[in-house]
Amino acid sequence: MTQPLKGTLVLDLTHVLAGPFAAKTLGDLGARVIKVEPPGRGDDARAFPPFKGEKSAYFAAINHGKASIALDLEEDADRATFDRLLARADVLLENFRPGVLERLGYGWASLNQRHPSLILGSVSGYGQTGPDAKRPAYDVIVQARGGVMSLTGEAAHAPVRAGAAIGDIAAGMYLAQGVLAALFDRTSTGKGRRIDISMLDCQVAMLDHAVAMASATGTVPGPTGARHPAVAPADAFQASDGAFVITAGNDALFETLCLTLDLPLADDPRFATNRARVDNARLLKRLIEAVTLGATRGHWIAKLTAAGVPVARMQDIGEVLKDPQIAARNMIVDVLDRNGRPAFKAAGNPIKLSDAEDRTTRGPAPDLDGNRGEILRWLDGA
Amino acid sequence: MTQPLKGTLVLDLTHVLAGPFAAKTLGDLGARVIKVEPPGRGDDARAFPPFKGEKSAYFAAINHGKASIALDLEEDADRATFDRLLARADVLLENFRPGVLERLGYGWASLNQRHPSLILGSVSGYGQTGPDAKRPAYDVIVQARGGVMSLTGEAAHAPVRAGAAIGDIAAGMYLAQGVLAALFDRTSTGKGRRIDISMLDCQVAMLDHAVAMASATGTVPGPTGARHPAVAPADAFQASDGAFVITAGNDALFETLCLTLDLPLADDPRFATNRARVDNARLLKRLIEAVTLGATRGHWIAKLTAAGVPVARMQDIGEVLKDPQIAARNMIVDVLDRNGRPAFKAAGNPIKLSDAEDRTTRGPAPDLDGNRGEILRWLDGA
Repeated sequence: MTQPLKGTLVLDLTHVLAGPFAAKTLGDLGARVIKVEPPGRGDDARAFPPFKGEKSAYFAAINHGKASIALDLEEDADRATFDRLLARADVLLENFRPGVLERLGYGWASLNQRHPSLILGSVSGYGQTGPDAKRPAYDVIVQARGGVMSLTGEAAHAPVRAGAAIGDIAAGMYLAQGVLAALFDRTSTGKGRRIDISMLDCQVAMLDHAVAMASATGTVPGPTGARHPAVAPADAFQASDGAFVITAGNDALFETLCLTLDLPLADDPRFATNRARVDNARLLKRLIEAVTLGATRGHWIAKLTAAGVPVARMQDIGEVLKDPQIAARNMIVDVLDRNGRPAFKAAGNPIKLSDAEDRTTRGPAPDLDGNRGEILRWLDGA
Repeated sequence: MTQPLKGTLVLDLTHVLAGPFAAKTLGDLGARVIKVEPPGRGDDARAFPPFKGEKSAYFAAINHGKASIALDLEEDADRATFDRLLARADVLLENFRPGVLERLGYGWASLNQRHPSLILGSVSGYGQTGPDAKRPAYDVIVQARGGVMSLTGEAAHAPVRAGAAIGDIAAGMYLAQGVLAALFDRTSTGKGRRIDISMLDCQVAMLDHAVAMASATGTVPGPTGARHPAVAPADAFQASDGAFVITAGNDALFETLCLTLDLPLADDPRFATNRARVDNARLLKRLIEAVTLGATRGHWIAKLTAAGVPVARMQDIGEVLKDPQIAARNMIVDVLDRNGRPAFKAAGNPIKLSDAEDRTTRGPAPDLDGNRGEILRWLDGA
């Protein structure tokens, strides 16, 4: 039972979400993570709601189990400490505006010369290159510019953002992938790499279907509400007491769905293939709802589940926290306070690995500079 | 210039999106990917629109540059071929219903015994364990059950899905992270691992803020339209000719925003901290729009950009395809046809690495079983 990244040290200069989310993933995989924060205010996310007392639960949900040291990278004494940390680190993460790390004397060329095996992972709004490289961005900015908002919502209403912060989180996930690929590669070359992640790029990377649609057919896709644009039926359907979702992603599932709903559509040429069903999705929805409106969500979910058709309730977060499948997967973990008591809940680690522990608790998030003493002693000790 | 996964062979039994998306990422990082498809119909996504002629551009956008061989894993001759492929593979990806791989004789225990260094990456709707493990799921199903839909849209309207297929794509990204971590780990242990990814788990993993909110405060968060729930201002704002987005994620940016809009709010205690601004986000939006309605989006975007405030247009996919920053980052690549001519566009690789080529084109997606001859010759040859 060993975590795959056991023995790996990640120094994390990032703040808010994308970078800290990547560091959290690396931590869940076994890396030791030391946050290096600016003295005084620390990570901006320390000021983000919700709060539990005076502490940000937003911050704690992403930074649990990390250590913190406050260093001013423009001060000689603190730079000396940072240099000693760099000498032991495997990975440095940063999300300064492009150019700032260079100005501080820690640009890639210089780092790579002094620490050839160090991996540098950078994440920024627009990446290290291109005309807008130096502009700042946040989740809503890249969801808007990257096109995800143009696909989200109802055509008759104003665009909305995806309710998860995928502007940041997708970038954090790609940053983690880049770091992991570089760690693997380094085992044969001995050399570090620089990873350059742009939040905007990562939005584009999630658009496969939409990019294919616009470039292969010339049709610019718009928002489709709850409906999937490439699969039918895959949508929310009204029952007598509210809506629930069904997806029948291939002909066999569609046939089962029709049998279960007693709908004589399986031989209808308008619905014979997924392609035809997508073209006639609106009509198909009306025909399905003519049946589903006749009973409750619970009725249909039980009946369709028994038949093997993919189906679900739309759950709110309170329901998610109590979902037996999510609980069985250890996806809601306890974040502990300093006395080792559960303080609140956070999302667990979705990367379930054989021969690795899947911890059910997480340590507290660090106070700003809260681990200075132990970090300095560790640097002195060995 | 070497891709980090050069020399790595990925056998891919998955279909539709989550698994193929992970394989695409591993391919972009340099792995060789061989799709092993069921004879006859192949990957379900071959039937998904949009189509370019008879071919699915949806399928091609995710499967470009891979090879395909059709094998019936219940037929002895095809099983023998599959076994020879397994003996050379580093990674096997699969997304059968839990239990199916075991029934075919390729369960983890058996694979691990015969091929101790092979990594097995499984992705399924609900994971390999838990009461719902054997139930099927798709993107819309897990966006609904996992809570993302409950946060997406406007409170007064029906829930909508995130317009990118994050139910699948997040699972694909976590599968890729698990595979990369296992590849790294294997360099020291020599042993493969089994990765068990649940699409539902991956939705929960993206909910950090919402889980913290519900468990730390008891308040179940709902949809907030275009507004970010933890940062203010971070929303769409109306100008005289339409809406655009602004985010001021810390006090300094908020002060700059107020100065640029000539709004005397920076010293107002209702807006003095991010926490206060989130509490008063509705009022703040009205005050900002009282100014922004007085001129065009173009005016405000130019002015705020010059001042360094994060700001953007909401772009549709046609605009994304022409965005100069996205082009400069090589995020829209040409998928070539069999004659080497550009056929349509796909999203590029967002993991930009030093000393690695960032290709501007991708090879065609394979026809079903299109690479049988060369794969069999390769197996015989060495």
